[in-house]
Amino acid sequence: MKDFNFYAPTRVVFGKQSEEQLPRLLKEAGGKKVLVHYGGGSAKRSGLLDKVYGMLDDAGIEHVGLGGVVPNPLLSKVNEGIDLCRRKGVNFILAVGGGSVIDSAKAIAYGVPYEGDVWDFWNGKPATAALPVGAMLTIPAAGSEMSNSCVITKDEGAVKRGFNNDLCRCKFAIMNPERTYTLPPYQTAAGATDIMMHTMERYFSKHEDMTLTDAIAEALLRTVKESTFEVLKHPEDYRNRAQIMWAGSLSHNDLTECGLEKDFATHRLEHELSALFGVTHGAGLAAVWPAWARYVMKKHISRFVQFAVNVMGVPNDFSNPEATAEKGICRMEHFFHAIGMPTSIKELLGHDITEAQIDEMVDKCSRGGTITVGAMEVIAPDDMRAIYRMAR
Amino acid sequence: MKDFNFYAPTRVVFGKQSEEQLPRLLKEAGGKKVLVHYGGGSAKRSGLLDKVYGMLDDAGIEHVGLGGVVPNPLLSKVNEGIDLCRRKGVNFILAVGGGSVIDSAKAIAYGVPYEGDVWDFWNGKPATAALPVGAMLTIPAAGSEMSNSCVITKDEGAVKRGFNNDLCRCKFAIMNPERTYTLPPYQTAAGATDIMMHTMERYFSKHEDMTLTDAIAEALLRTVKESTFEVLKHPEDYRNRAQIMWAGSLSHNDLTECGLEKDFATHRLEHELSALFGVTHGAGLAAVWPAWARYVMKKHISRFVQFAVNVMGVPNDFSNPEATAEKGICRMEHFFHAIGMPTSIKELLGHDITEAQIDEMVDKCSRGGTITVGAMEVIAPDDMRAIYRMAR
Repeated sequence: MKDFNFYAPTRVVFGKQSEEQLPRLLKEAGGKKVLVHYGGGSAKRSGLLDKVYGMLDDAGIEHVGLGGVVPNPLLSKVNEGIDLCRRKGVNFILAVGGGSVIDSAKAIAYGVPYEGDVWDFWNGKPATAALPVGAMLTIPAAGSEMSNSCVITKDEGAVKRGFNNDLCRCKFAIMNPERTYTLPPYQTAAGATDIMMHTMERYFSKHEDMTLTDAIAEALLRTVKESTFEVLKHPEDYRNRAQIMWAGSLSHNDLTECGLEKDFATHRLEHELSALFGVTHGAGLAAVWPAWARYVMKKHISRFVQFAVNVMGVPNDFSNPEATAEKGICRMEHFFHAIGMPTSIKELLGHDITEAQIDEMVDKCSRGGTITVGAMEVIAPDDMRAIYRMAR
Repeated sequence: MKDFNFYAPTRVVFGKQSEEQLPRLLKEAGGKKVLVHYGGGSAKRSGLLDKVYGMLDDAGIEHVGLGGVVPNPLLSKVNEGIDLCRRKGVNFILAVGGGSVIDSAKAIAYGVPYEGDVWDFWNGKPATAALPVGAMLTIPAAGSEMSNSCVITKDEGAVKRGFNNDLCRCKFAIMNPERTYTLPPYQTAAGATDIMMHTMERYFSKHEDMTLTDAIAEALLRTVKESTFEVLKHPEDYRNRAQIMWAGSLSHNDLTECGLEKDFATHRLEHELSALFGVTHGAGLAAVWPAWARYVMKKHISRFVQFAVNVMGVPNDFSNPEATAEKGICRMEHFFHAIGMPTSIKELLGHDITEAQIDEMVDKCSRGGTITVGAMEVIAPDDMRAIYRMAR
């Protein structure tokens, strides 16, 4: 078991009445001049944005809006936000949307008090300050509302990178599952996949002695799996929308990492796919995971058997652990297909990828051959190439 | 499902190397003059106290010590601490011990900046300020290291009451499972019982639609049950000591309450037992719970069936839910006996209690007949009397 820290200070306000708490939460967090940051049209169309502006006006809280955040959020938008916040004297950033909007808000928060190029932090510079950020979540997936993670894509060269620092943990997160009723099936399924992968990337660990964290992770994975089937049939099923939304936060607030060493190789391999092809992150994870799993399975057989039995409900063939483990991966592929997710890159993109594209992704994922990814199993550039080929 | 808030800002530092982090954590929390608060002789005998003083000296952090906190911590000690902190200009309170020490520290923290009688808060006055508190945990049980709860006994009249407020959440909690190796079997078992009851008092809820919280609670309960058997056989089993210690925090930091309405009737009934007879809280809970469970079971049968099947591993007799539910309670009694806990008040005390003593407990638990306890099932004074009699 690994010694661990657990720090999840975000104040979560969850449920049907949660949005009404916004003015109180902003005042407690010292928000006086607020940047309301959002994505495309859905926050506008649903009336949520108008509701937010109305509440801020009624509470006498000044605000300025900035929309247009895209999935796989861009550095150019972050820089636009930094400029705007400085010009307007913004002291708090409210993200209204999903993980892309929250990550863009976090990046702006780092940038405002920093004199250099904000991308420096994604190049390894430690951050020492950030404006406070709050979130009003509309897409359960990234878990950014409780995580210390912030993933940004630099427009030039499509370089997608993550930066983790506790400074960017949201002061509060407002979560109303009703806001997710209108999510299209593909986004719902991709979000559920991202949520499950955040836990699986921790569960597949070289440590196998943290029973409680494993048991919580398995409980979460089983719950999200069942709830995803339900909400795809019944989009306005509050109960199951709520399970998925809360699971999204718990999957990435480090609860399912306590005592383990996270792996995140699949995420790192996927980042290059979504940077290069602009695909939905969750769908990209589904396309890569089975190849990663089969590539590393034989060296970590007990873990894959545990996953098969405790999460996927595979009857344990005690005399043949490899067969049990393989069945767990198959069942996961069946699940992905059942919810409309791909299990190969060809299914994801609708076309083949070339060796040259694989070389480009390997080069970027390994930063020119200088780094490896993964922890349970270290994935070097040659392994990356092999996994991309298997996932093809 | 109930709308919920989740707020668990305590910075947890867990593991074999965790104690070395104390000076850094104190400095980050602004601790300059520290009250080191502790209980009886074990913190001294184990050398932990000397280690703490040594680290504070090396880091140039001023400190003053106050020991002598007893189980079911007393208001008189709290007042002694408040006086000492004021005289010495203490600005941070470090609790080195278990729940009693942490609760005593929290009460001192409320009292120092308050001009009136600190007991006012246990009489319903809202608190507006408190000194910061940190914990170095040596007994996993109360969960006070991450909870907003603080239970104090007023010496005069043995009045034991809880007061909940986020102001008293610990800034940090240092947890080294090795420190629990020397806990006697009875304290180990009573602690595990308290931990399980903190989750069970939330699990037995009138809400039955928060699948994820239920699944996490069940995972936690199964884990603590198995780990308790292991550590009673092998007191220096790090892995299982760690499961219990971390479960203690998660059981009372509200994670297992999300979407539910907590009940806590058994706790409230037990408080009068430990106030009157000075028994160990966890053992008192084991003595009362089976009676409470059988008293309320018939009106909440599906919940007790779920507990029996998912926690206690009872095969579900689908045609006879009551039989399945009853078996779950029986299995819990077997578990309590197997770990050396009582399942009746007579077993707890070694002697019968009188009707007059029951009357006194009912009177105090109901504050002279003015309040009820419980939420899944409201327990009025007559119900209290019936449960105490069944538990006798």
